[in-house]
Amino acid sequence: MATPIPSVIRFDDPQIELVHGAGGKATRRLIETLFVPALANEALAALADGAVLEAGGLRLAITTDAFVVKPLRFPGGSIGELAVNGTVNDLAVSGAKPLGLVAAFIIEAGLPGDVLRSEVETMARAAARAGVAVVGGDTKVVEHGKADGLYIATTGLGLVDPRLRLGADQVRPGDRILLSGPIGDHGITVLLARGELDLEADLESDTRPVTPFVEALIDAAGAGVRWMRDPTRGGVASALNELARDARLGVLLYEEAVPVRDVVRGACEILGLDPLYIACEGQFLAVVDSAVADAALEAVRGVPGGELAAIVGEVRAEPAGTLLAVTSYGGMRVVDMLVGDPLPRIC
Amino acid sequence: MATPIPSVIRFDDPQIELVHGAGGKATRRLIETLFVPALANEALAALADGAVLEAGGLRLAITTDAFVVKPLRFPGGSIGELAVNGTVNDLAVSGAKPLGLVAAFIIEAGLPGDVLRSEVETMARAAARAGVAVVGGDTKVVEHGKADGLYIATTGLGLVDPRLRLGADQVRPGDRILLSGPIGDHGITVLLARGELDLEADLESDTRPVTPFVEALIDAAGAGVRWMRDPTRGGVASALNELARDARLGVLLYEEAVPVRDVVRGACEILGLDPLYIACEGQFLAVVDSAVADAALEAVRGVPGGELAAIVGEVRAEPAGTLLAVTSYGGMRVVDMLVGDPLPRIC
Repeated sequence: MATPIPSVIRFDDPQIELVHGAGGKATRRLIETLFVPALANEALAALADGAVLEAGGLRLAITTDAFVVKPLRFPGGSIGELAVNGTVNDLAVSGAKPLGLVAAFIIEAGLPGDVLRSEVETMARAAARAGVAVVGGDTKVVEHGKADGLYIATTGLGLVDPRLRLGADQVRPGDRILLSGPIGDHGITVLLARGELDLEADLESDTRPVTPFVEALIDAAGAGVRWMRDPTRGGVASALNELARDARLGVLLYEEAVPVRDVVRGACEILGLDPLYIACEGQFLAVVDSAVADAALEAVRGVPGGELAAIVGEVRAEPAGTLLAVTSYGGMRVVDMLVGDPLPRIC
Repeated sequence: MATPIPSVIRFDDPQIELVHGAGGKATRRLIETLFVPALANEALAALADGAVLEAGGLRLAITTDAFVVKPLRFPGGSIGELAVNGTVNDLAVSGAKPLGLVAAFIIEAGLPGDVLRSEVETMARAAARAGVAVVGGDTKVVEHGKADGLYIATTGLGLVDPRLRLGADQVRPGDRILLSGPIGDHGITVLLARGELDLEADLESDTRPVTPFVEALIDAAGAGVRWMRDPTRGGVASALNELARDARLGVLLYEEAVPVRDVVRGACEILGLDPLYIACEGQFLAVVDSAVADAALEAVRGVPGGELAAIVGEVRAEPAGTLLAVTSYGGMRVVDMLVGDPLPRIC
């Protein structure tokens, strides 16, 4: 894991706002200047939602996420499916095979029993699809008006593949950046599902386990896989900014190579959003050694659902800590982390 | 782990109510008739908030809990302290030494930054006290009016002591029941802290890690420890009812031997509550072989804070599945699981 740049700044925002949960700059600042100093320890210093712990010669990955998506159901998925896939995907991009999931449910009094049952059954199916089980859980109920029906916090435990050493500190100039498929489907789907916008689109969330793609990638590229991340909140732009910053290297994004469905691009144009910041729930980014990049891409494309995978960028020594998007016309722009919260409550 | 009595009943309550989160009969019914059938797997069938998973010859305990206590701070503790101690204690009563904790924060927009910082710092201190660290986390923010300031879901990973085989199926008639100290302090403290009752008492929550007591017990009684549980929601009565039911044995509680502080007993009398149903957050119950019961008690009493530990009951073959409270005058009554929710949101 990379050592983050030590923070000397104290979190001094007077109160927490939605933007602190958006996965961009404000979230990173909250974590760096409040959580990390308070909880100071080596594992947490990697600023991740998970950690790798060693025990009895094993490397165990543990990762946790709270899900507060609104609405609970949307085209292509629901909170239960996200709660499983999101956690399974965090394990997958840690290079870990899942051993088990646990889930804590915070339920609003008044939630129909059928809705709860449906979500729990959905979780079971999603877990089975990912080859894991929900082995324990906790249930709390809060008063009507709280918790928007249901929040779920899921934690996954996995066994790290001994072939891998993943981390921003493993990344080298010349490495290539692989993206498993089109971005933004989830974020735009949930936004439209709220029905607050006079906009319809034939679009579904991409929520799915990325495990089969990651497995194919690792089989093809082995230790040539340096770093992986699922671009959820904050999107590809925030994930690659974190990579650039943690690795203290430059990341060049071939903007035209990034797959974006027309319907997502169209919705983003109307709404004034940049697809690079929109959450995916079934894609991942990987940094791979350039020597194995072609084989890695072929492997991911060979898995059903991975046909649109692409090499979307490369790592450079300079400008360190910066994500640059380039176009074939030679245009170049700095792409910052997400600022503000264009899409609250999308996971 | 004990095999629960298979359920053929389908959860058909039209909606979820606060009582389903109270830790008593309704909670058990929700878990047995909705969660277990939906998520069906062997580990979950033990109906616990945690599970023991095997990997590479290790037995790993994982346990999760959501904390929604109201108010966030109360005499003797706060949500952050509960979130760490509750999870540490679940690991301890699984016979596991903690390897790491992860925490998911659901924060209400508008929560003062200082309150969040204070809780995170409290968690760090509580974790250090228990000899573990918070190694990862997730942060979500929901709109003003949701989440009562802060909910925390904590998950703990631990390594199970190889000397132990704990479970209701290990319990035998003749075994003794040890309780680590006075009951009900936490539940009554939180109830009074809400300020809704015209009642004051010099009382603090008992939130603390039970780890040192459990370690002393295991050192003294080894494999003579059969089963452990921390009597949180639903109290001693619900925990021992679950034991009786899962073990298909009778549990006899020496009611006068159960330590209860005068102030807790007094508050319970005024409020019409039975201390046996009131949550503790720093106590545990253990079933121990009668041959080592005296040594076990002495060991727990020898740890500072364990002076009031007591042998409070015994296991009998009959009446199977039932908790009976007896008094020295020969009085005897069936003590059921908690029905209803006298104390919502106490953890």
